[in-house]
Amino acid sequence: MQELFKKAWEKIKEAKNIVLVSHINPDGDALGSSLSLYPILKRMGKNVKVFNVTKPLPQYLDFLPNFDKVTDKLPKNVDLMISFDCGSFDRLGIDEKPPFLINIDHHISNTNYGDINIIDPKAASTSQVVFEMLKTNGVEIDEDSATCIYTALVTDTGSFQYESVNEKVFQTAAELVKCGAKPDFVAKMLFQRDRLSRLRLLAKAYDTIELCCEGKVAFVEVTKEMMEITGAIKDDTDTIVNSVRAIASVEVACMLREDDDGIKISLRSKNYADVSKVAVKYGGGGHIRAAGATIKDEFDFNKVKNMLKEDLKEIVKVEE
Amino acid sequence: MQELFKKAWEKIKEAKNIVLVSHINPDGDALGSSLSLYPILKRMGKNVKVFNVTKPLPQYLDFLPNFDKVTDKLPKNVDLMISFDCGSFDRLGIDEKPPFLINIDHHISNTNYGDINIIDPKAASTSQVVFEMLKTNGVEIDEDSATCIYTALVTDTGSFQYESVNEKVFQTAAELVKCGAKPDFVAKMLFQRDRLSRLRLLAKAYDTIELCCEGKVAFVEVTKEMMEITGAIKDDTDTIVNSVRAIASVEVACMLREDDDGIKISLRSKNYADVSKVAVKYGGGGHIRAAGATIKDEFDFNKVKNMLKEDLKEIVKVEE
Ligand SMILES: [Mn+2]
Ligand SMILES: [Mn+2]
Repeated sequence: MQELFKKAWEKIKEAKNIVLVSHINPDGDALGSSLSLYPILKRMGKNVKVFNVTKPLPQYLDFLPNFDKVTDKLPKNVDLMISFDCGSFDRLGIDEKPPFLINIDHHISNTNYGDINIIDPKAASTSQVVFEMLKTNGVEIDEDSATCIYTALVTDTGSFQYESVNEKVFQTAAELVKCGAKPDFVAKMLFQRDRLSRLRLLAKAYDTIELCCEGKVAFVEVTKEMMEITGAIKDDTDTIVNSVRAIASVEVACMLREDDDGIKISLRSKNYADVSKVAVKYGGGGHIRAAGATIKDEFDFNKVKNMLKEDLKEIVKVEE
Repeated sequence: MQELFKKAWEKIKEAKNIVLVSHINPDGDALGSSLSLYPILKRMGKNVKVFNVTKPLPQYLDFLPNFDKVTDKLPKNVDLMISFDCGSFDRLGIDEKPPFLINIDHHISNTNYGDINIIDPKAASTSQVVFEMLKTNGVEIDEDSATCIYTALVTDTGSFQYESVNEKVFQTAAELVKCGAKPDFVAKMLFQRDRLSRLRLLAKAYDTIELCCEGKVAFVEVTKEMMEITGAIKDDTDTIVNSVRAIASVEVACMLREDDDGIKISLRSKNYADVSKVAVKYGGGGHIRAAGATIKDEFDFNKVKNMLKEDLKEIVKVEE
């Protein structure tokens, strides 16, 4: 890893026109990691652009320093592209490969599409990999950069709650605070700017929670009518399934959302069940603990629930 | 501080019968800090008891190692008592002062009721003070002890989100993980054992959210009827007011709960308003950001809201 960090930094030092890119529908790690290098490369006198194909960008990340610099127009005449948190080239929303590409990520599924690939599946976030690259090369991390790296770490670890949180994560957080990151400010920006429409939607949705399979499976429904009455937007449905999974007895939570093209199902498991199997069966995909699919042209919630109950009954069985 | 840590540890080494105590209605820091010394003192061959006057203890903390050792019967023939996270002697629920008392806390309001008082108002948790005492004296922290200290740190910082979170907090967390604390396990125990009754109550309560004062003030109601319909217990109302404060525009959130003796009001502010003033006016108390009171023999929600609106209008004004 040390070798790769040094090789990548040499390449960065040589380049003049650099573009920092991240995956479509970026999360805190994607935007945070890409923006973390912006002030550093500027300081080095580079011509730097930050690109993301998504428009509009998620509003909850608008406090990231230099958020307003992110453009959806790919600059021309780029010598070096650096991609962050992106498992495959096609998720960048870019047609042509650049002259040189450094691919920095922590997804085990990364396809190594870069000329230099720095992939650490053990890292809690891509920003953790960026942090180590900077440290290895003795690069000073300023306050803006620290805020970006820290935010990415917080969002990718669910505020230091996921399995990926190890000693190094906390050591990194400590160093970032020393560099100027403000944990309470970041937390306020991320978690204290909620929408009333979201709480109103939760009121409707939580009323539909249904437990089955000895309490191990929970369903929750979001209808178009609920969205209309409460004035909710699609983003407002994001955390519902996680809150339902948090019920003590629940191993798998499933949210059913009425969309234009059918019923979207979002699946989350807590300790052992592989929900990706079920999602794949219905033409979707995802990970062991988080997966989803859309049942096209189907709008009958009860029918879908009964169907899913059979699948979920199997995966919540504890193998002995 | 170093001197105090050494003096306290000398006293602990001399003692034979030690009782570890914490405040009534203990939180994670109170129980976690007191339980963190249990395995260490046992290892040193001490006769150790852990006392808390509250019964039953909060269930969400039942995963703390040696939780089952906590007793509500004060042992006799104690040489040394150590109190944790407790601002004044009367909040221990103990009638008589012991022969010797070490008072470890981080509340600035601590009355220094001990024979040795180790009070660090800058510490994010009492467990942080305990951690430093152990480090100063070169005491090995085992896995059980680390889990207790870590849990106390997490609960008192809201998962590393409060203003109190500084470089030292993260350095401590890193060292605790090295000693065996498991962040994901602690997070699962604290935040993934929710009650369905609580979500059902949220469904009813969120439907009553009302904004006023240009969105800076939010009210939310919890009636006895809601509690009965949903099968909710009083603990289920705990975080409602925090969730409502999290709305972007809100500076002060106020929950009104119908109790047997009147309407209980819980106040929370986000950035600048001092809600303790309002609580004190109605015979209650608290801190700048969290306070409460009970309006005795009053059961008319609208009357109380109209009254409070006048008070809250004043405190959400931004002074220029
Ligand atoms: Mn990531
Ligand atoms: Mn405390």
